[in-house]
Amino acid sequence: MIIDKYNQRAKKINSLVCVGLDADFAKIPERFLKMKFPQFEFNKWIIEETQEYTAAYKPNSAFYEARGDKGIRELKMTMDYLTQNHPDIFTILDAKRADIGNTNEGYVASIFDWLGFDAVTLHPYLGSEALKPFLDRADKVSIILCRTSNPGAGEFQDLEFEAKKKLWQIVAEKVSKDWNKNKNCMLVVGATYPEEMKKIRSLVGDMTFLVPGIGAQGGDLEKVLASGLNNAGLGLVINSSRGIIFSDNPKEEAKKLCETIRQYSLTK
Amino acid sequence: MIIDKYNQRAKKINSLVCVGLDADFAKIPERFLKMKFPQFEFNKWIIEETQEYTAAYKPNSAFYEARGDKGIRELKMTMDYLTQNHPDIFTILDAKRADIGNTNEGYVASIFDWLGFDAVTLHPYLGSEALKPFLDRADKVSIILCRTSNPGAGEFQDLEFEAKKKLWQIVAEKVSKDWNKNKNCMLVVGATYPEEMKKIRSLVGDMTFLVPGIGAQGGDLEKVLASGLNNAGLGLVINSSRGIIFSDNPKEEAKKLCETIRQYSLTK
Repeated sequence: MIIDKYNQRAKKINSLVCVGLDADFAKIPERFLKMKFPQFEFNKWIIEETQEYTAAYKPNSAFYEARGDKGIRELKMTMDYLTQNHPDIFTILDAKRADIGNTNEGYVASIFDWLGFDAVTLHPYLGSEALKPFLDRADKVSIILCRTSNPGAGEFQDLEFEAKKKLWQIVAEKVSKDWNKNKNCMLVVGATYPEEMKKIRSLVGDMTFLVPGIGAQGGDLEKVLASGLNNAGLGLVINSSRGIIFSDNPKEEAKKLCETIRQYSLTK
Repeated sequence: MIIDKYNQRAKKINSLVCVGLDADFAKIPERFLKMKFPQFEFNKWIIEETQEYTAAYKPNSAFYEARGDKGIRELKMTMDYLTQNHPDIFTILDAKRADIGNTNEGYVASIFDWLGFDAVTLHPYLGSEALKPFLDRADKVSIILCRTSNPGAGEFQDLEFEAKKKLWQIVAEKVSKDWNKNKNCMLVVGATYPEEMKKIRSLVGDMTFLVPGIGAQGGDLEKVLASGLNNAGLGLVINSSRGIIFSDNPKEEAKKLCETIRQYSLTK
């Protein structure tokens, strides 16, 4: 199973930390802006500062697309660097894609094959029939948006269906029961909604969650760990982006997050 | 209102045709593959063949992203060509994006400002709070996925809420009542679901629909026009991609689609 790549790395370094490589051009330290490939050089630096505590890296595609083809090239350079230098670290493109049927083949070609990511985030709205080109890739992980971390997440996700089920609950159940035939699905579950995370954990067994919302967005790490760890003491990919990469000392912040998690998870 | 750009073009040439510039590298005629910029050269040819019948062009981003930074550059070249030579034709990037809050600024910068599109397609799942960076752009159109054209669209979209409302209906109502403050919203409503289109038309007044699913996907044009035209005899952007661009005679196919629509819409 492809998710084993993440689990092995997490166990090897005793960490559930995912560093969000959100190389926002407006926030990159000035010394990088003078270089030929600013986003790539910044990422390379962040990777070397944080890698010993990092089980997964997750660039958000928007920050690269904002610079057009230049940004896409630097995203590719970042992935090539990771593949060559840290092949055991799990890689996620936070791209929040989803189109109908065959059109998705373009995204599959771009994200899995050309860029080479292990995983991608996907919207559920079009259903599993549409997402087949992603789900059929047993060698790659499809991470379905379930309960997102934003304040207005509930506008649709909290709508209640018959039997008082909310939409996020139905997404969790469908992904876990029907979509996960290749054991290659994960769910996005925001750190800002620990009660929902607890419920989702009870519904989906040991499935792994990508957890955004720690740090700047206000998610509570202890609550996340209490609500979300699976039976193996794993099952969470805990992302921090701005809180690490734009801090004065990215290495120290990654270490701090990693050590806080260690108090509650693997070593316990 | 930015949607007036589409309406004016549609009225000027008496057409509701949108040509989907889905320049799939595997399907482009061989003579273009030898050129330095195959997707751009193919698009330029298609644009000149079809422009007299075309109210909107809609490239799907996936077909360009499949080629990495090269494809993105040719998408940009296509948009520059359109802006310079056919500035009155409405342009839509079918990108099906949606991230949380500020991250969307990257997509706004890329799609609206760098590439220069008039409109983009968006997933509703994260809610309007998340989509604010798109919705705040009164000079650009946000096209929200409501009822998509794929066979499995109903997996989530047909879920029924209290009062027997389906999810697509709630999306339509929310977008029309709450999201459309800048009069810059449209909905995606698939040609393959004319009954749903009729219902959505009854819910949202004169709002414009982007309609995929004619042609290869089997949508019935007459039913679409009967179900979806608004009070002004407009309100539809009827897309055909493969059926036009990979036909033996794209000009003839665009003309045929345009003339069939004319029998039912503007001139009636």
